[in-house]
Amino acid sequence: MSKLLSLKLEKGNTIYGTCVSSMAPLWSKAVGNAGLDFVFIDTEHIPLERMEVAAMCQLYAAQGIAPIVRIPSPDPYKACQMIDAGAEGIVAPYVESEEQIKDMVGALKYKPLKGEKLKAILEHPKTIEPDLKGYVETYNRGNLCIINIESIPAVEKLDELLKVPGLDGVFIGPHDLSVNMGLPEMYDHPEFEKVVAIIIKKCRENNIAVGIHFSESPERQVKWISEGANIVIHSSDIAIFSQQLSKDINKIRNSIGDVSHQSTGNITI
Amino acid sequence: MSKLLSLKLEKGNTIYGTCVSSMAPLWSKAVGNAGLDFVFIDTEHIPLERMEVAAMCQLYAAQGIAPIVRIPSPDPYKACQMIDAGAEGIVAPYVESEEQIKDMVGALKYKPLKGEKLKAILEHPKTIEPDLKGYVETYNRGNLCIINIESIPAVEKLDELLKVPGLDGVFIGPHDLSVNMGLPEMYDHPEFEKVVAIIIKKCRENNIAVGIHFSESPERQVKWISEGANIVIHSSDIAIFSQQLSKDINKIRNSIGDVSHQSTGNITI
Amino acid sequence: MSKLLSLKLEKGNTIYGTCVSSMAPLWSKAVGNAGLDFVFIDTEHIPLERMEVAAMCQLYAAQGIAPIVRIPSPDPYKACQMIDAGAEGIVAPYVESEEQIKDMVGALKYKPLKGEKLKAILEHPKTIEPDLKGYVETYNRGNLCIINIESIPAVEKLDELLKVPGLDGVFIGPHDLSVNMGLPEMYDHPEFEKVVAIIIKKCRENNIAVGIHFSESPERQVKWISEGANIVIHSSDIAIFSQQLSKDINKIRNSIGDVSHQSTGNITI
Amino acid sequence: MSKLLSLKLEKGNTIYGTCVSSMAPLWSKAVGNAGLDFVFIDTEHIPLERMEVAAMCQLYAAQGIAPIVRIPSPDPYKACQMIDAGAEGIVAPYVESEEQIKDMVGALKYKPLKGEKLKAILEHPKTIEPDLKGYVETYNRGNLCIINIESIPAVEKLDELLKVPGLDGVFIGPHDLSVNMGLPEMYDHPEFEKVVAIIIKKCRENNIAVGIHFSESPERQVKWISEGANIVIHSSDIAIFSQQLSKDINKIRNSIGDVSHQSTGNITI
Amino acid sequence: MSKLLSLKLEKGNTIYGTCVSSMAPLWSKAVGNAGLDFVFIDTEHIPLERMEVAAMCQLYAAQGIAPIVRIPSPDPYKACQMIDAGAEGIVAPYVESEEQIKDMVGALKYKPLKGEKLKAILEHPKTIEPDLKGYVETYNRGNLCIINIESIPAVEKLDELLKVPGLDGVFIGPHDLSVNMGLPEMYDHPEFEKVVAIIIKKCRENNIAVGIHFSESPERQVKWISEGANIVIHSSDIAIFSQQLSKDINKIRNSIGDVSHQSTGNITI
Amino acid sequence: MSKLLSLKLEKGNTIYGTCVSSMAPLWSKAVGNAGLDFVFIDTEHIPLERMEVAAMCQLYAAQGIAPIVRIPSPDPYKACQMIDAGAEGIVAPYVESEEQIKDMVGALKYKPLKGEKLKAILEHPKTIEPDLKGYVETYNRGNLCIINIESIPAVEKLDELLKVPGLDGVFIGPHDLSVNMGLPEMYDHPEFEKVVAIIIKKCRENNIAVGIHFSESPERQVKWISEGANIVIHSSDIAIFSQQLSKDINKIRNSIGDVSHQSTGNITI
Repeated sequence: MSKLLSLKLEKGNTIYGTCVSSMAPLWSKAVGNAGLDFVFIDTEHIPLERMEVAAMCQLYAAQGIAPIVRIPSPDPYKACQMIDAGAEGIVAPYVESEEQIKDMVGALKYKPLKGEKLKAILEHPKTIEPDLKGYVETYNRGNLCIINIESIPAVEKLDELLKVPGLDGVFIGPHDLSVNMGLPEMYDHPEFEKVVAIIIKKCRENNIAVGIHFSESPERQVKWISEGANIVIHSSDIAIFSQQLSKDINKIRNSIGDVSHQSTGNITI
Repeated sequence: MSKLLSLKLEKGNTIYGTCVSSMAPLWSKAVGNAGLDFVFIDTEHIPLERMEVAAMCQLYAAQGIAPIVRIPSPDPYKACQMIDAGAEGIVAPYVESEEQIKDMVGALKYKPLKGEKLKAILEHPKTIEPDLKGYVETYNRGNLCIINIESIPAVEKLDELLKVPGLDGVFIGPHDLSVNMGLPEMYDHPEFEKVVAIIIKKCRENNIAVGIHFSESPERQVKWISEGANIVIHSSDIAIFSQQLSKDINKIRNSIGDVSHQSTGNITI
Repeated sequence: MSKLLSLKLEKGNTIYGTCVSSMAPLWSKAVGNAGLDFVFIDTEHIPLERMEVAAMCQLYAAQGIAPIVRIPSPDPYKACQMIDAGAEGIVAPYVESEEQIKDMVGALKYKPLKGEKLKAILEHPKTIEPDLKGYVETYNRGNLCIINIESIPAVEKLDELLKVPGLDGVFIGPHDLSVNMGLPEMYDHPEFEKVVAIIIKKCRENNIAVGIHFSESPERQVKWISEGANIVIHSSDIAIFSQQLSKDINKIRNSIGDVSHQSTGNITI
Repeated sequence: MSKLLSLKLEKGNTIYGTCVSSMAPLWSKAVGNAGLDFVFIDTEHIPLERMEVAAMCQLYAAQGIAPIVRIPSPDPYKACQMIDAGAEGIVAPYVESEEQIKDMVGALKYKPLKGEKLKAILEHPKTIEPDLKGYVETYNRGNLCIINIESIPAVEKLDELLKVPGLDGVFIGPHDLSVNMGLPEMYDHPEFEKVVAIIIKKCRENNIAVGIHFSESPERQVKWISEGANIVIHSSDIAIFSQQLSKDINKIRNSIGDVSHQSTGNITI
Repeated sequence: MSKLLSLKLEKGNTIYGTCVSSMAPLWSKAVGNAGLDFVFIDTEHIPLERMEVAAMCQLYAAQGIAPIVRIPSPDPYKACQMIDAGAEGIVAPYVESEEQIKDMVGALKYKPLKGEKLKAILEHPKTIEPDLKGYVETYNRGNLCIINIESIPAVEKLDELLKVPGLDGVFIGPHDLSVNMGLPEMYDHPEFEKVVAIIIKKCRENNIAVGIHFSESPERQVKWISEGANIVIHSSDIAIFSQQLSKDINKIRNSIGDVSHQSTGNITI
Repeated sequence: MSKLLSLKLEKGNTIYGTCVSSMAPLWSKAVGNAGLDFVFIDTEHIPLERMEVAAMCQLYAAQGIAPIVRIPSPDPYKACQMIDAGAEGIVAPYVESEEQIKDMVGALKYKPLKGEKLKAILEHPKTIEPDLKGYVETYNRGNLCIINIESIPAVEKLDELLKVPGLDGVFIGPHDLSVNMGLPEMYDHPEFEKVVAIIIKKCRENNIAVGIHFSESPERQVKWISEGANIVIHSSDIAIFSQQLSKDINKIRNSIGDVSHQSTGNITI
């Protein structure tokens, strides 16, 4: 149960995951069967609280599947709670400033330091006593610090953001990014594709892992990997279930001459 | 929120459902999007208890999706509990005798009668006082009494079983049936297919609704409908998620030259 | 937190309770404010499971309010589980035979004896070794054994039922009784009133505590007390909330000229 | 399940609701029976978390009863979480500044915009691109933005507060307001009544819906409606249960000569 | 996550476990730290339901700690439910007949066979078709069938009981056994010790694993191992916490001159 | 159920508690058996949410054991939520400024005042109207305001911090303090011991109650009491269980010649 995901990334592996929103205890077998490296547990949009997240983190971690938790806002207290609950990585949503990343690094790489002392170290990392440095490195080994890049202001200052020491990865949020660009849900728009390609490229140049959380066809993931992405965050349990169930039921209806059902909406996260 | 599934069956509709094992509250939208008539909540094999089943029943029923609950054994007390929790139909597993069906009919069509009085009425249905008859008919309107046929002894006495007054439907359990036949999981075996066809035929001759709970390709459901089945119980959330996730992830792995993952087992219910 | 309800009954007090179906932790203050002696937790009709019942039992007992739990059927294993969870009394529903009462007495007065030894003692109570008798008496002190009388067959053999050693109380179930009499929900019918009066009278002659669980006006309880009842089981949280909310809202609607809402049904337990 | 409460308000209807603190799944029937338009789910004072609120929101919304959720503080992240959980309206407690309202409007009317872009739009609403405007309007249709006015500083700047574009409604918090005025719980005090009347009048002049959450007699609601209020938030499940139970039990005690119980406190929210 | 406990027993290892009643997700680390082979999850006396047991089973199994579940009564349906939830072994309480053991063997070694076919096979094990035999052996590999011996009638027919094919282990229940012997809680009584020694001896002669669930000093376990026991079921979380907390607090009180607290009772399971 | 812990402190008693992380309902008996005055419920590090904390607070308070809740950050909204849930005292972690303490005092001693009015009163406590002062004193009677001192910056300004009116107690956090001092987990280091002694001394000089939360030997608590501490916060359920279980199991292993298990880590909070 040691935290191995960071090692896999260091070795240059592509790592694979999906977003899981159901806490049914037998769910973890489905994820295990697919040979995934991590699950993405999104507490920004999915109603899951600490007790549920803790149970999920402990269960997936015990199976060797790293639990990566998105917190609702870039709040270092929330990050610490999720690490205590068993998360191996934290995703902070909608990050647009170096300050926000430093806060997350403080929570994920210097735990249990807090308050004035932590503030001083984050401003001048070299001032930390060597013994203490060793202690917090061991204490926080394997904790991954990941941010969501999902807005133009973030893309514009990406060079600065990616250079904050302690940052490990970037998850691109396609829905928010497309809306922020004024191209809502137009994931095929060349401007959108261009921005995604830029983010991937800059991340890899800065040795930051990068992936995009996308709930549609797996072919997209292949394309982004070809552009440099090394994290696959493929869809979610509820999107896969919803899309495939509708497809199957309509196939049956059509075969027997029943009227096909028009879905009233998409379920993605 | 009146119980409408029995009406749909009476009108000759084919009704559609899936098995749901996750109690995540957003799940019901996925089922609604697919235009389903009912959900099959299986408490025989899935760890779900009364509180969870009650929450699911209330939620699906409020959306106009009928909750059909399988109880762990043909126990009339359990059937009553699930009706009180909001179920619109009960599936009793592995039924092999008329006595078991009568017990279920007592729980589902004569509630709240119990004890000696109920026993007497089940033996001699005509002895019930007319006023009381009217009361219990109204009280239990729309409650569906469904049994699992999943063994050779049950098939051998199917004619008697299907004639018990009050029985509404049959769910064929393919796993148990195939094992009972000594053909475990050989769903393509001609003997297995023959027995399924016989059950479907006899049910429809006796005006009993019938379907088969199957977690693989939707094409099978089309075949069974062509043989007379009028209930589609297509797969389950966990089977669809597990199968499709593995397929998608292997597609990505193969495309980028990663080694494909060998699933260690099937997840069906 | 010793079990005091049995003492109150022995002293000749009238004891007061209500049926509670919500497990919201602040609920117990509402019950405390009304000065109740016990809560009636009904697991026959209300979806509440062991975990929830245990939490409720521990909380009410800690406040000096005795938790009395109705189990779904006269099953001694269920009775033991609820005593282990903290219940001070068990109500077995729809009892019609001495055998059923003996089973409950075995579970409630001879715990942890079971199996062949218990069977022998229940048949010949005097054969128990004196030391063991003392041990189980202390071990089970304060456990109340209560049965539901709610059918004509039970009324007909009431004299025998009430004489089973170890029986402490009777709860009359008005809904089931009225249906069993062929007078569904006709609680004002003279035949129904007569049978209730007989049950109350016989119970008190046999020194058995008795009450009736009724979800309408408190005046009825007064009438039954005047006939000898010494347990008040007045309504339930959901019935009181539902009835009073409808009354209040309609009062507001009427006052301002809005159309009054026609309730679509009664909520009682 | 479309969000209809805002439409009812636009049409000039008086809308009716109550505060619900129990998550028992059968509760929603009691609310439905009373013909209510909405439930008020208060997460400021009642211990209810996201999982529970999501289950309640989905269930009430499926029945056509709009779930309105009060968050613990005027925090836009919390507002987004509750909308994701299924809320149709958010109540921000103890608002005293235009900035707080703008934050809520950002969360409820411009979702999923965030960060710098949202900040710019909230400051200069006309700068939003027309296409994007259309998208977020559709995306957020029916989300109600409600604030609690419950202090003198808020009343003093009410004209400014009520003019923030996007604000839909005001809930008056009588307990906090009375304490803030130095007239704790003196709801009959003429000064208190005067301030309530002023808030109602100003709201309606600004075309803002308004109501007052009050746990005592329904006659008060009638009075406030006559002053212009168009939202009735009548009492709560726990207050109605506690008050009526105490009344009924004391009626029984008095009738039979038992000592009446002195309640040790009020339960309101 | 394959079921390994049966292998460890076959190899002649002594296996170690404790009883766990808390479902806090971090608990499993405490059990892991002690190097245990299994946890004993007791649903006979502890209020834990299927959902909780399933979560615990999945979590402990994922860590390589086998979950062994005691069901409330020797009910094969309950046994199947717990295996479906992830249990690797089932303990049936208070077994006194060969019939009860056969029922458990049916549930644990012949799953998913049921009904008439299973009955016939249990009576004449050799009549099972060879292919089907292979299938159910694979399907049920590693499922442990354990019974509680805790009464004199059971001891008297121990030779017959231990010879039922498919039985794997015996847990001695000291509390029930001592009460059944008329020596309640007299665990030092020579008669009690003698009976325990006999049970251990007979089990090992029949190649049945055996242990005793005891919540006091570890020295007792050493003694029973010396007599032949090969399963250690040492105490429970709540007994260890309760005993040690009282000891520590009294040590502090005594050291500083505060009055020592007299515990009002023992907490064991 | 009145809040008595503050009274015990005023009378000069040493008060005793432990940290409880399991919400199993029978747990409270274990705490009651040890004669404790309070439980420490830590929501900073332990995954426990409002629903669970509310259930625990109500249960422990009903037994006369005061629930003291640590919130994840010094956030007055969180403090109010926990008081509403039934907490009798709040611990704010890692406090380093007078402003933070004032925020907590506002939440705990002036509830339900908020916003501008509360701000003005906290700055100039004497400006509160006498009637209102009386009201909030009664309303908040018994609420304990406790802070964690666990850093050198806090120790350096301890004199100012301890003089903020309304502060009741200090919990020393040994882990954070030792790390902040650059002496991680070196609880025997003379520098660490010296700082603890200073904090204790200054607290008692300012009539502030003080204790240290420590998960190892009870002898330490005796030492700190001798230095002036008047609160004992001895270990936690999970630490006691983990430490004692490992000790017992290794004792058994060693006695029978099995290899002793090397624990892979400590479980403390």
